[in-house]
Amino acid sequence: MLSVMRADVARVEDRLREEVRVDFPFVGEILQGLIEAGGKRLRPLLLLLAARPFNYVFERLLPAAVGVELLHTASLIHDDTVDKAMLRRGRPTLNSLFNTETVILLGDYIFARSAMMAAATQNPRVVQVFASSLAHICDGQLREIFTARELQQSIDDYRKRIFGKTASLFAGSAEMGAILGEANDEQIDALRRFGGHLGMAFQIVDDVLDLRESTDQIGKPAGLDLRQGTITLPTMLFFQLNRGNGRHAELVRRVVGGHDATDEDYATATAVIRESGALEHALEIAAEYVRNAKEELRAIPAGEGRDMLEVLADHSLSRTS
Amino acid sequence: MLSVMRADVARVEDRLREEVRVDFPFVGEILQGLIEAGGKRLRPLLLLLAARPFNYVFERLLPAAVGVELLHTASLIHDDTVDKAMLRRGRPTLNSLFNTETVILLGDYIFARSAMMAAATQNPRVVQVFASSLAHICDGQLREIFTARELQQSIDDYRKRIFGKTASLFAGSAEMGAILGEANDEQIDALRRFGGHLGMAFQIVDDVLDLRESTDQIGKPAGLDLRQGTITLPTMLFFQLNRGNGRHAELVRRVVGGHDATDEDYATATAVIRESGALEHALEIAAEYVRNAKEELRAIPAGEGRDMLEVLADHSLSRTS
Repeated sequence: MLSVMRADVARVEDRLREEVRVDFPFVGEILQGLIEAGGKRLRPLLLLLAARPFNYVFERLLPAAVGVELLHTASLIHDDTVDKAMLRRGRPTLNSLFNTETVILLGDYIFARSAMMAAATQNPRVVQVFASSLAHICDGQLREIFTARELQQSIDDYRKRIFGKTASLFAGSAEMGAILGEANDEQIDALRRFGGHLGMAFQIVDDVLDLRESTDQIGKPAGLDLRQGTITLPTMLFFQLNRGNGRHAELVRRVVGGHDATDEDYATATAVIRESGALEHALEIAAEYVRNAKEELRAIPAGEGRDMLEVLADHSLSRTS
Repeated sequence: MLSVMRADVARVEDRLREEVRVDFPFVGEILQGLIEAGGKRLRPLLLLLAARPFNYVFERLLPAAVGVELLHTASLIHDDTVDKAMLRRGRPTLNSLFNTETVILLGDYIFARSAMMAAATQNPRVVQVFASSLAHICDGQLREIFTARELQQSIDDYRKRIFGKTASLFAGSAEMGAILGEANDEQIDALRRFGGHLGMAFQIVDDVLDLRESTDQIGKPAGLDLRQGTITLPTMLFFQLNRGNGRHAELVRRVVGGHDATDEDYATATAVIRESGALEHALEIAAEYVRNAKEELRAIPAGEGRDMLEVLADHSLSRTS
């Protein structure tokens, strides 16, 4: 169904590659590789699709679509420095190739390119959404750092944190697409909420995959959240399910606290969370977000555009990498 | 002469403080302190002054003026991480208080706030100048990293590097002010060049101060450039003056190369550069930039606004911190 979008997404990819061309030896190739390794271009796709039911003018959407993917890439680069991750999308991270200094500046450089793309839309409202998405992303990432290893946080804290970190750019992408497609204000708001719910579902599924899949499968180190003390929904639900009592809960608490945890401890902690039913419960909550997202589509005229948005929403639940 | 601007700069300061208000404990206070420690607000002042000979509407200029100072602050935060500087503007850097991860994200957060300010101008042309200034800054900082300890670079390489790192935001600030003041295109271009020349002079003076003054005087560690292998204009001129020959040149080469240099070596290298006349020569080049800057003011209507721009240009040469 989404294959009708393939050609336009390919044009976004071409432009992405052009935008990260730099004349520093070596760095240029690395950035190209990073862009080519890719990921699913979900944010540009969402942005394009949000305009599809309205006045879809690809050339007008292109800079914004490139901009959101660059913004996402820049934030991954900085996040990998933060996470000290050595692997992302199945490839070595910049962090494993350059010193921190260089990685920070390369991330900043990609931020700058993304801001230029936002500016190129010549649309003040789009620029405003873009800038506030960036602020939300930073806020979410800071929350993640400041709440690490903190067992007293609530599921609401988690929601707030992942809204910033992930859902805000999904919300912003959909909103920008709708604005550039000249939807009316009610439709723009509905699509913003659609994107936000979708982003929440996407991040919850990501947090489940981190505990459920292998490193090979997800292209980044599995179980990273536990190791970093990032307390995600499945872990919170695990504590709820066993009321925080017992030997298993004690182990997970110790592992998340980072106190003398061995590799075996991490493996056991992952296993007991998996076996508790917490992953299934988390996926139900993700499914609820997808249902809420689809509800928002009522404000959108029926047709192929709306159908594709539905397909995209369903897809966010069924992914395994 | 510039005192007539004091009230408006104070309003910029108030807004700056508001913009870095965050609800993370501790971080908020640190950011407030960082903003209060201040610096000279040269970029906002330049932006305001560039509008002064035209249609000066303070409320329209305010977001852009706050935006350029936030952009500058964000880039200092990341630069301090890069430099591993423990002192800036006479205060401990964020880098000395938080881990690298947090500092990167706080810098990103300030970037985001600055982008929101640019967006708040609602002026696509201003947003575009803003974004491209950011790209130039990153480019300049990357050049600085990639040319560190590289003795084969030319004075033209140096000019290109400091244009990116410093002068681009001066050029951009003046350009944004002129755009928002509704100057005509010729005047906007002239003011952009004025700002660029001013920024070049400013950075050259900075590079001289790094070698000439004490840590107390400049509020950051003196002699940092030599230690980091950043080859600045005075060092280049030093090599030119003695044709790269002799015991002194050999010492400076070794120190800049970073090979087993002791604290005493750094002190001696600083002394021989000072005594070579290279600092005076560098200041003459800075003075030439200031002259070129003032030439550009011919395109601007005579009056108090233009006079203040001239004073600002002269001031960039006479500063000692």
